[in-house]
Amino acid sequence: MAPHGEGSEEAMVVQDENRKPISSILIVIGVDSVGTISASLVTYAAIQALQPDLIINAGTAGSFKVKGASISDVFLASDVAFHDRRIPIPVFDLYGVGSRQSFSTPNLLKELNLKAGKLSTGDSLDMSPQEEASIVANDATVKDMEGAAVAYVADLLKVPAIFIKAVTDIVDGEKPTAEEFLQNLAAVTAALDQAVTQVVDFINGKCLSEL
Amino acid sequence: MAPHGEGSEEAMVVQDENRKPISSILIVIGVDSVGTISASLVTYAAIQALQPDLIINAGTAGSFKVKGASISDVFLASDVAFHDRRIPIPVFDLYGVGSRQSFSTPNLLKELNLKAGKLSTGDSLDMSPQEEASIVANDATVKDMEGAAVAYVADLLKVPAIFIKAVTDIVDGEKPTAEEFLQNLAAVTAALDQAVTQVVDFINGKCLSEL
Repeated sequence: MAPHGEGSEEAMVVQDENRKPISSILIVIGVDSVGTISASLVTYAAIQALQPDLIINAGTAGSFKVKGASISDVFLASDVAFHDRRIPIPVFDLYGVGSRQSFSTPNLLKELNLKAGKLSTGDSLDMSPQEEASIVANDATVKDMEGAAVAYVADLLKVPAIFIKAVTDIVDGEKPTAEEFLQNLAAVTAALDQAVTQVVDFINGKCLSEL
Repeated sequence: MAPHGEGSEEAMVVQDENRKPISSILIVIGVDSVGTISASLVTYAAIQALQPDLIINAGTAGSFKVKGASISDVFLASDVAFHDRRIPIPVFDLYGVGSRQSFSTPNLLKELNLKAGKLSTGDSLDMSPQEEASIVANDATVKDMEGAAVAYVADLLKVPAIFIKAVTDIVDGEKPTAEEFLQNLAAVTAALDQAVTQVVDFINGKCLSEL
C-alpha cells in the first residue's frame, strides 16, 4: 500500500543482482517511503550503484477529468515539475518549480498506445488551493509524489529518465482522494505492472535513440 | 542569496579536506540548492563520504512573533517535523509529518545562551493556510526549508544531528516574507556565522555525551 509511490523506486533498466535492493535502506516505520525525499535519495544511490542507461520511474498517480483522464489510464509524462515549492524570489521561483522535459520516446509512446501528458509532483496526497493553482500553471494532466524529484537527480547526474504513471484517483472527481486511491490501488497497480512489462520488453535490445 | 538555505548544507564537524565540497554536485541554474531534496541528498552524500560523528544543520529561518521571536535570534531546535507532506492515510500521515527529536545538547544550549524551540520544514518560502495549520500542529517556533529532511537522512543512517537556525523574517509580522528575508539576510547570516563558530568551538574536543 503506497500513495502514488507504488513501484516508483524500483524499475531500472540496468540491474545488478549482486547488490541488495537500494530501497532497503529506506525502510523505517513500516510504510513505503513515498514522496520526493526518498525518491531523490534512491535515485541518487541507484545511479551511483548501478550506472543505468535509463531510469524508468513507474508509479500510481492522480489525474483530472477536465483533462479527459479515467481510472487505470497509463500515462507517459512528457514534462515534469513541482507544485509545492513556492519561492517568490527571481530565479529561485524557477528552481522551485523545477520544470524539466522527460527523455523523448516517440516510438515507445506510439507502439504501446500510452497516453501523453505533463506530470506535476508534490509531497501531499491531497491538494491545497495553492497547489491546485501551481498544477494548473504546470498544465499538468497527472499528479504524483515522486516524478519531479527523480527527474531532478537524473538531470544532475545526466541519466535519461521516463515516467510511467497509472491513474488511481480523479482529483477533480466526486470521491475523497485517499478513499478512491485505496479502492483502486490493487487493480491499477496490476495495470501498471502490465504496462511497465511492455515498456521494458519494448526497450530491451534497443538503443536510446530508437525509443 | 539563499532563502532559508544559507549555509545549511555546509557545516559538518568532521571534514575531509582531500575531497571536493559535496555541494558542488548540486549547482545547476546558479542559485543555491535550497529545500528538502538537495538537503537530503547532500546529507546522504556527506555521511557516505565523511562519516561524521555529528551533523550541524545551520541556516536561516522564519519565526513567529506569537512565539516571542525577533530578527537575528538564533535557535537550537529541540524537535523537527515537516509541514507540507499531508498524507491522510493511517501511518502514512505520521510518516509525512516525520517528527523527530534532535540530538540533545543541554550544555551547549545553556553555555551559548541559545533560544530553544521546535522547527518545522517545508519547500516553500511562503506559507499556505494548510501549511500554517500544520506548523501550529507541530508547535513550531521556527520555519525553515531543510531541517526535517536533514533529520530524516541522519536518522536513517544513525548519525546524531543538531539544528541551528537564525531568524531572517517574522512570518506573522507585517512585512512580505521575501522582502523581509532579503533585507535581513546579510546581517542575520553574520549572526549565524558567529553562533556556529561558537558552537563548533564548544563542541571541539568534547564527547557527544558532554554536549
